[in-house]
This record gives sequence, C-alpha cells and structure tokens, in this order.
Amino acid sequence: MIRVGIVGATGYGGRELLRLLGGHSESEVVALSSTSAVGKTLEEELPGFGKLLDLSFEAFDAKGLAERCDLVFLGVPGTESMGLVAELRAAEVKVIDMGPDFRLKDASVFKAYYKTDHTHPDLLDVSVYGLVPWNREALKSADLVAVPGCYPIGALLPLKPLLDAAKPAVPVIIDAISGISGAGRSPMQAFHFPEMNENVWAYKLGTHQHTPEIEQELGGGHQVQFSPHVGPYTRGILSTITVRPKGSFDVAACYACYDDEPFVRVLGEGDLPHLTAVRATNFCDIGWVTDERTGNLILVSAVDNLVGGTAGMAVQCMNLMFGLDETSGLAFGGMSV
Amino acid sequence: MIRVGIVGATGYGGRELLRLLGGHSESEVVALSSTSAVGKTLEEELPGFGKLLDLSFEAFDAKGLAERCDLVFLGVPGTESMGLVAELRAAEVKVIDMGPDFRLKDASVFKAYYKTDHTHPDLLDVSVYGLVPWNREALKSADLVAVPGCYPIGALLPLKPLLDAAKPAVPVIIDAISGISGAGRSPMQAFHFPEMNENVWAYKLGTHQHTPEIEQELGGGHQVQFSPHVGPYTRGILSTITVRPKGSFDVAACYACYDDEPFVRVLGEGDLPHLTAVRATNFCDIGWVTDERTGNLILVSAVDNLVGGTAGMAVQCMNLMFGLDETSGLAFGGMSV
Amino acid sequence: MIRVGIVGATGYGGRELLRLLGGHSESEVVALSSTSAVGKTLEEELPGFGKLLDLSFEAFDAKGLAERCDLVFLGVPGTESMGLVAELRAAEVKVIDMGPDFRLKDASVFKAYYKTDHTHPDLLDVSVYGLVPWNREALKSADLVAVPGCYPIGALLPLKPLLDAAKPAVPVIIDAISGISGAGRSPMQAFHFPEMNENVWAYKLGTHQHTPEIEQELGGGHQVQFSPHVGPYTRGILSTITVRPKGSFDVAACYACYDDEPFVRVLGEGDLPHLTAVRATNFCDIGWVTDERTGNLILVSAVDNLVGGTAGMAVQCMNLMFGLDETSGLAFGGMSV
Amino acid sequence: MIRVGIVGATGYGGRELLRLLGGHSESEVVALSSTSAVGKTLEEELPGFGKLLDLSFEAFDAKGLAERCDLVFLGVPGTESMGLVAELRAAEVKVIDMGPDFRLKDASVFKAYYKTDHTHPDLLDVSVYGLVPWNREALKSADLVAVPGCYPIGALLPLKPLLDAAKPAVPVIIDAISGISGAGRSPMQAFHFPEMNENVWAYKLGTHQHTPEIEQELGGGHQVQFSPHVGPYTRGILSTITVRPKGSFDVAACYACYDDEPFVRVLGEGDLPHLTAVRATNFCDIGWVTDERTGNLILVSAVDNLVGGTAGMAVQCMNLMFGLDETSGLAFGGMSV
Repeated sequence: MIRVGIVGATGYGGRELLRLLGGHSESEVVALSSTSAVGKTLEEELPGFGKLLDLSFEAFDAKGLAERCDLVFLGVPGTESMGLVAELRAAEVKVIDMGPDFRLKDASVFKAYYKTDHTHPDLLDVSVYGLVPWNREALKSADLVAVPGCYPIGALLPLKPLLDAAKPAVPVIIDAISGISGAGRSPMQAFHFPEMNENVWAYKLGTHQHTPEIEQELGGGHQVQFSPHVGPYTRGILSTITVRPKGSFDVAACYACYDDEPFVRVLGEGDLPHLTAVRATNFCDIGWVTDERTGNLILVSAVDNLVGGTAGMAVQCMNLMFGLDETSGLAFGGMSV
Repeated sequence: MIRVGIVGATGYGGRELLRLLGGHSESEVVALSSTSAVGKTLEEELPGFGKLLDLSFEAFDAKGLAERCDLVFLGVPGTESMGLVAELRAAEVKVIDMGPDFRLKDASVFKAYYKTDHTHPDLLDVSVYGLVPWNREALKSADLVAVPGCYPIGALLPLKPLLDAAKPAVPVIIDAISGISGAGRSPMQAFHFPEMNENVWAYKLGTHQHTPEIEQELGGGHQVQFSPHVGPYTRGILSTITVRPKGSFDVAACYACYDDEPFVRVLGEGDLPHLTAVRATNFCDIGWVTDERTGNLILVSAVDNLVGGTAGMAVQCMNLMFGLDETSGLAFGGMSV
Repeated sequence: MIRVGIVGATGYGGRELLRLLGGHSESEVVALSSTSAVGKTLEEELPGFGKLLDLSFEAFDAKGLAERCDLVFLGVPGTESMGLVAELRAAEVKVIDMGPDFRLKDASVFKAYYKTDHTHPDLLDVSVYGLVPWNREALKSADLVAVPGCYPIGALLPLKPLLDAAKPAVPVIIDAISGISGAGRSPMQAFHFPEMNENVWAYKLGTHQHTPEIEQELGGGHQVQFSPHVGPYTRGILSTITVRPKGSFDVAACYACYDDEPFVRVLGEGDLPHLTAVRATNFCDIGWVTDERTGNLILVSAVDNLVGGTAGMAVQCMNLMFGLDETSGLAFGGMSV
Repeated sequence: MIRVGIVGATGYGGRELLRLLGGHSESEVVALSSTSAVGKTLEEELPGFGKLLDLSFEAFDAKGLAERCDLVFLGVPGTESMGLVAELRAAEVKVIDMGPDFRLKDASVFKAYYKTDHTHPDLLDVSVYGLVPWNREALKSADLVAVPGCYPIGALLPLKPLLDAAKPAVPVIIDAISGISGAGRSPMQAFHFPEMNENVWAYKLGTHQHTPEIEQELGGGHQVQFSPHVGPYTRGILSTITVRPKGSFDVAACYACYDDEPFVRVLGEGDLPHLTAVRATNFCDIGWVTDERTGNLILVSAVDNLVGGTAGMAVQCMNLMFGLDETSGLAFGGMSV
C-alpha cells in the first residue's frame, strides 16, 4: 500500500486527485496539507468527502511528510511549489508536482513566462516530464515528476507522432477551449456565474505560459501559435490544431504508435472527439480531417483538464513509479452525461 | 468475480452502471443487451468506453444470460422490464431491476399510474425494494431487487426516520428538482439544449408515478404532495420537504439511525446540502431547518439521480446480495467541480 | 422626454434598467452614479453599452441629480439607499428605488430582517409599493416608489387574487428557485462558475428578508413558509406555491382580475409556466393544478428576476408616474432561446 | 408603418425577428406563416408572445402576403426558400431572406455545398448580400436581400478591412464556436440537454457551407480554413482568426473604416471581446493581438448569432430599404447577464 501525502489538496487538481485515489486500491492517502485550511477536517473543507476519509489539514512539514509518506503530490499555484519540492526531495521522499515549476528545462524561459527566478534550477535537470506515453521508461525510476500542463497534454499527444512527417513550414496553430475549472478555485469577477454563463472569450493570445512548454516537448524547433479560450462549462479541453504539412503523409500510420496506449484513443479520419467521452476520465481522444482543398491537416483532441489533463495523468505516473498496473484506479468510461 | 449482464445498457442508468462497474474489482461485465444497438460494439455506441470494455450488444436472451451471468441488471423504460424479469427469474438468474415495474406492491396502483396491467403480479410479492438502509437484511438473500426511483430515494431517506415522531396532520409537501438526465436519453423538444438551457419548470403535479411509491414506503397512511421540477443541469435531485409536525421533537436524535450508514450523511440543523457534494457519488446528504415561527420543519436532501438515485444504489444492492463489502466500487468523494 | 438618472448603474438591476431604457422612446438617461466606477465611462465599465450611450459615472450628488433629472432610479444594496433617497426627496426629484429599503411599512420589522435601524421611517409612510397590478392608481401620483423584491413579485401575483376565497388554515408553502443574477454582482466562492454549475441548493429557509414583505402585502394575517433556492442559470424565478384551501372555489374566476393586465398572463389549470417564456420580459406567467386527492392547490409562477422582477416593473412604474402608455419600452416577447 | 410578414416564424431566427420587431416603432407584423403551425395562434405555438401579438399562422400564400405586406422576411431551412422567394418577388413584394439560398452568386458552388440545383439562378444576380457595413448603398434600393450567414458575419467584419494590407500567403485560419441555437430548433440526440451540456466538439471541418460564402465576400482569391465548433450555451459566435501577413501594417488604421458604423465596435489591440457584451444585440465586437514572435496576427470577433448574426442584421437591412434610421429597434446594450 503506497502511503500518499497531498500538498494543496483544496485546489481543483488536488481534490480531483483525492477523488481518484478513493477508487485506487493500492494507495492510501495519509496526510493533507493546505495553507488555507490548516486545522480543519477534510469534511469541513470539502463536504463531498464526508464519511470517506477521516483526515485533517496540516501545515506543510517536509520532514514529517517524508516520514509518513512514500510519495507526495503537490497541487499548488505556479511558482509556489519549487521551494516545497526542494525541501521534500532533500527529505528523500518521491514527489509528483502537478504544477508548472519543474516542466520547463530552461530556467531563463521559466523566468520569462513566470516572472520570477527559478530557485532550484538544479532540480530541472532531474525532474521527469510526466507525459506517460512518451516518457514511460524514465518515469519508472523517477524521484521527481512534473505532470504536464493541461493544454500541453491536449496539444502534444496529437502532435508528437506527426511532426517529423509533416515538417510544417509555418507555425502550428493551436486553438483550444477550456472549462472554467482550469482557472482554479479563487472567485473572480470574470468567472462569477452570471458573467461566465453563456460567455466565451480568448485570452493570453501568443503569451500563455504553456506555449514554451509545448514547444520544448515538440522539439525540433517547431513554433506554435497557441490561442487559449474559456467557455461556459466546468471541465474539459478541446484543442483544434491546424498543421500545414510540406507534403502528404499517412496520418493513421503515424498514430499506430498509440495502438497499445491504455489512455490514448485514436478515433480516425473524420471521427472528431467530444468532451463528454473523456469527461472524468484519463483518456485523450484524437481525430482529424485532411483538407485537400487547402492543403491543411486539422487535428482535434479532447481531454478532461482535471483528470487526463492533471490528476489522472499524475496517478498514472504514480502507478509507473511504484511498479503497479498502469491503469490501476483509472479504468473509468467517459461520463457521457 | 461476479459475472454481470446488463439489459438496456445504452440508457443513462445503464451506462452509469457500466461506468461504476469499471471501478468495481469484484465484478465483471460479460454481456450487454439493448434493443436499439444489437450487433454494435459498446465503443461504437458509447465512445467513452473505448479501450475499456470489449463487448458487443446482443439481443435479449434470458437463457443465454442466465448461463453466463450470476446477476442481470435491467435499465429499461417503465412497463418494459416486467416480462424480461419474469423470463430471467424463470431461468434462475438473480435480477436487479433499476426500473419501476417491481417497486409497487399493489398491482392496481401500478395500473393506475403506469396505465397498463402488471403481467407478473406474483413477482411483486417476492421482489425486495432496494432502499439499502431500510432493507439491508432482506437484500442479502434477495433474488429480485427493485431499485427505488430517484425521487423516492431523495424523499424517503430524510422522511422515514421522522414521521413516527412528527405525526404530520396535513400531507407532507415534497418539492423536488431534477437534472435532465432523469428524463432519459430520447431527444425531445422540451429538452433540446436551447429550450432547456436557462429554463426551469414543474410537471406532473400531484400525478407523478413516484407519488404512490413514496407513500407505500412511508407507510402509516401518510399522504405526500409531490411536486417535481426539472432544471438546466444534467444530474442531481434536490428535494425540499415541508413537514408540519404535531409537536416538537428531537430531529437530530431521529437521524442517529444513520450514524453508521456508509452513504447517508446527516449534515445537521441549518447545514443544507449542495448537489455538487453528492455529484457522481452514492451519497444522500440531509440537512434541515426548524422554523419556530411557523411551526414547520423543512428537510432538504441531495442525491445524484444516476448514482445514489439509481446505479450506485443498484451496485450497493449487488454488494449485499453477493456478500461483498457494501461500499465496494462506490467509495468516491463528490465531484464538487 | 423624461430625463433619468440611475444611481448604482453597475449592479445587475441597474444595468438591466439601462438596457431596457435603450429601447424606451420617451425617456433619456442623462446621469449615472456608482461608488465603484466614478470617473469611468459607461463603455469602460460595461463594454456592452459602447457606441450606445456616451456617459460617465459621477459621484452621488442629490442636488445635481435633482437639477438635471425628472426621475432617479436607485439600484444599490439593501440599507444603502435609505439615506440617498432621503436626500433626493429633499431635493424634490421623483425616486424609484429598486432596493428593499422602502418596501416594509413597519420600521421594527425592517430592523429585524435587515439588522439595522431605518434612518428615515417617515418616508415609509409615503413610499408606494410598486406592484403595478395592485397599486396602479397610487403609483400615478407617487413621488417615491419602492419596487417590490423579485421573490415577492413571483409570490404575490399568483396569491393575492386567491387568498380571500382559499382561506388557508396552515401557512402557504412557497418554494422558489432563482437564477444567480439574483445574488448580485460580487464574486463569491459559492457562485464561482465551477462550484455553481450543476449545483442547486436551498438557503435562508424561514429567515429570508422577503418573507415579511410577502406577508405584509398579502395582508389578512396570512403566514408563508418561504424556502428560496438557487440553481445553475442566470435569470428567472420559478415559484411553486402550495395552498391548503378550506374548501373548493373557482380558481380561474379569481384570476379574471388579470384579464386586462398587460404583463400578467394566466395560463390556466394544468398549463404550467416555463422560465424561457418570460425571459428578458416584464411578464409574470401563472398556472396551477388542483389536487383533489390531497385537497391542495398548487400554483406556479415564472418571472425574470431582473426584468419583471426588478427593472421592468420599475419602468412600468415610471410609465405610470409620468402618464405614459404603461407598456412603453416593455413590449417584448419571451426570449425562448 | 411598414407592414411585415414573416415566413418561418417558429424557427429560432424567425422568432428572434418577432421579438425584435416588438420594440420597433415603425413596423407592424401583420402575417405569419409556418408549415408546422398552420391554424394555431402565435401564443399557442410560442407562449412567450401571449398578450403581445394577436396573430395566427397561415399557410404560405405569396399573393396574399404581397397584398397585405410591404416586406416579407423568410426564416426557413436552406434550399426551402428559393421557390418561395421567387413567388414573392413575382408578386412584387420586397423580400429579406435570412436563409442561405441567395447568398452565393455562383449556382454551381451553391449546388456543390447544398447538394441541390438552384431553381432560380436569375435571382442570384439581383439579390443583395446584406452585410450592411459593406453594402449599405446597394441595400437602400434592394428588393431582395440575402442576410449573410452567422459565421460569415463574424468572419467577414474583422477580415475585410485587413486583407488588402495583410496579403496572407497561406489560407486564413478561422476557428469559430457557436451556441446551439445555431443548429436550429429540431431536437437531435447530439443536442439533447444531457449530451450537449459540458460538451464541445468540432464539425464539418473544411466542408461547412459557409466556407464558400466567406471566400466569395472576401474576394481576391483568398482561401480560408474554416473550423466550426459548438459549445454548451445557447447564443453567440466567437471567431478566432489567424492571419499570416506578408509584412507589418497598421491594423488599427485599417479598422478606422468602422469608426462611424453603428453596430461594429473595434476594441483595439489586446482588448478581446466577450460574447456577453454582444448578447441579444446587433453588435459585432472586434479585438486583436499581433504576435511578433511568430509573425501572426490573431483577430477575435463576437456576435450574437440570432441578432447581429441573423435577425438584427435583417432589421438593419429593413431600416435601410425603407429609409428609416438605421438603428431603429436595435439600440440595445449587451445582456451582460
């Protein structure tokens, strides 16, 4: 039984992790930490966990966590995990960070997008980027995992198998729309129900911090034009990706690499994914259309930003790190309604 | 490993059952039947189950199901299960019916509300009403279980512990609102997204078929005024119940009967439930307010109509029937977002 | 041309009033005041009014408003308008207050529910309760109008014609559900999109401040059990009202009083209203069911809380006060989608 | 007073037109026709218009309409209006067609996208494309107007002022998302509330029938890659348009052409539109971002598909055709909640 601690368990990523671990038979949550809820019981803070898990929130204490836990997950805002992770690693407990602090390998790029110096650039070299289908072997022996961002997961899984064949001459266009849970738990005017209901808008065009993460993991000097949006729903990211390939190539053959991936489903040419089929699951669904008239290839992917885009991918990483069945605790069908 | 068959797996109750059983380690779905999808794979019909369960839909065949299954669930429209259940029971397989055909004990009441004769009134006597907290012992040895209706679960769990003490002189008022999944999967003008979005309405006031079911299970000749509504969301029933007690009594003491119930949470006086705390769970949350000014007691309950109100309660019944841990496959916290 | 000022134009009631007055050909908005937006243009604060109305927000100045305006509307939070209204009345400009400060006639009841002393109880005697169908004549000569609360409008319009005939022996049960715009514009955790989406809950059971307002206007010592709820949508209140009449009486005949009301539509026995039919309109729709089995009468009403429940009713009051066609600027059909 | 007839008044475009004309002081709706509702009153079919407009639906009769009307609007499905329009024009009544039959100038392109021969190609030459800001003079004397499609309005208004300066070498990428009202009123499985709620998907990538319409009106041989989506809301289209200009140019200067347009609002560089600011209005809001890193220009536009994208644009055309103030009946601010 893997003993798990969660730092930042009141955020949406953290509480989704709690929900998933409730159905994971080989792990046990033994410690919760949250700066805003110290001393409160889990049930007081999150009534949906009443009668399920009898734990209280503690102040963060790296040594204490390391003594009681085999693994600590972090779900804290960007730039707030780097110090905590360094303490936890110094105390020699394994760490899975669901935030952005250890995803970018270049500390200067981190600074450019997160507006602060990285305090532990040495750990950037040892952290493993937790995109399971592409880093499975490295994850098995990892001590520090950086779970990819939700948008990058939806962009990288459809793009990585193709770019060598596609050789696009102009930047790849990624238009993505996310549910509001991606914006976190703090109330804001823009996300007040009456203002967000029936609303859609674009934001951070060309400047979103997931842009360098996507480009880093695509490699090969590929540029992306990343245009994120939010829409009036809670969960899920649909990414529509327009690639202008140099010539024609066999898209379906490229995607054969995912035949045995447990949580990537390639739907095929003309079969486009719906968010509901991945809702509350760890899946990424992928479909595409080849437009011979224009010469473009349009890829569409769907992920649940809180599961396949964060907490589910984190559990899959855990399963790998501890030698468990990779699908343990994740074998759920889409919550189509 | 319990071998499970599901008849009517494409309806919302059936597919939710499929989703829950994906996380149930002691059962295995081995057969699916659906009149509308015979010959299609599960993945074709419900893409959210791709790469999870490799089954195809078969035509209904009671003997074949009885040979391959230890238990058959039915999730078919009202009045359509009675014949199928009779065939399955004749073939000696255990049955859990999620529909209404075996809930009412009086065939004449069934006819009055469902507008057709009951074809197998003999089975009404042997079917066990699957309201677990109140029929636990009978369920352990049941061969035929009728899962309660979603509205009755939300009404009976808060009301049953109280009525002996409350002795209401006028009918209990139950105003309940349900998400649209309760109306089933068939497209209708009233539930077309643009017409149901931002809409709320009341329906079947005083005539809803769950009225006699609630009164039967309350016993004691209690009348209820049941006023159902639908609102612009997918899942969950909030029931607001106004009782006019004869005198004062200790509400909290009455609810002590639920202290050890795994899936009933009594929140207490003035602590009113939210649908999100029970969303995608098997819980029923209960709170109340005593209004000394008017002399009324107002109870509020929340259930997820597809889980705690249907498929989750059905799984809990299965766990009891087969001697498993009652919470097996159901230990999930509320999907608060 | 009536010259109009609006105090509190950035709140949801105020901005809806602005929207309605855009289509009102006999009035002109000449001044806007808002504590939070002084010095900003309307377009900066509310981009949806760009290219329509070229005004800036001013600090509140009663004399200045009285000089430039024939009428001032107020849409400020409860307890904040009483002082402003007193200043405006001292400056001799007509006032329509969309907030609660001048609705209750008894200052001690005001204090009990709003937790503060009323600073201008003398004005309570002269203010006219702006429920148009019941106070039409008084409104024609009113200088100070208190627009009714949104819930009271939805409760009073169906109840007032009936109670003399119904003579209910037990309190009338009013279960109502409102869209989130009723909770105002300030962001709160409970109304953060991901927490309110797919959520319904009850609040202030037996203690809501609209309770005494409803009872005051029903008169005759009638008690009501008022149970408000919020649901996952922006606009509209559906009220389900259970009355236990002493004997039988002709409901339809009672409602004949509304035959010539321009904005009350009596749908009839068994014809229950939908929010979408009144959405963005000044209408109140009413239907009912007589349940002979239980002896109860169930009334259902629908209003748009921001139009028929606030700003539209306010415009109708203005039309009366200034001798205009009562329907001026309000002749819109329901925004059924 | 312009006497108006509406053919297809039960569809979403038609009923929105009815709603707008309720606030239009210089026109009067005198006839309604609908194949599905002949003989029914407007109130029976659309309860939201009760007590507002006392009309019944008639069977289509071109001569009868021409005798009683100065103008007939059509809101019928694609390919169904061409015959009706021809009859109406033969009867010499002015026509505004809100459907697609008279937008494309090339009958062979019409056939390629609508899968049927155009029965009246002669009328294609005389119909005026009702994109008001670009065809104002022609509209003043038009007898037959084709209101642009909702997606084309959202794409053409931001693109037309720029393309001469931008000279894009690769196709313009238009990713747009629409509310479900754009899919019409007929219930479908995909738009059943529980299946569409919390769902987003892409459709008709590269093949949508609005593609040739956009390219025709852009002129200059420009190709577009048009990728439409639907999201879980009722109204509004947000279009995100990626242009790859040959060199740099002054975007704001190009948009100066809209300075005096009553219903086009240019928000400026970095100021991106929200659907709520145009909701229930005739406005198109436009913002943009220049990405120097990638060399792309990203434009974002927002329109209400039923008003600025259909019925509002149609009323603006009417105002021009009859010499009225262009903004008559359309001066509403955005329904931000």
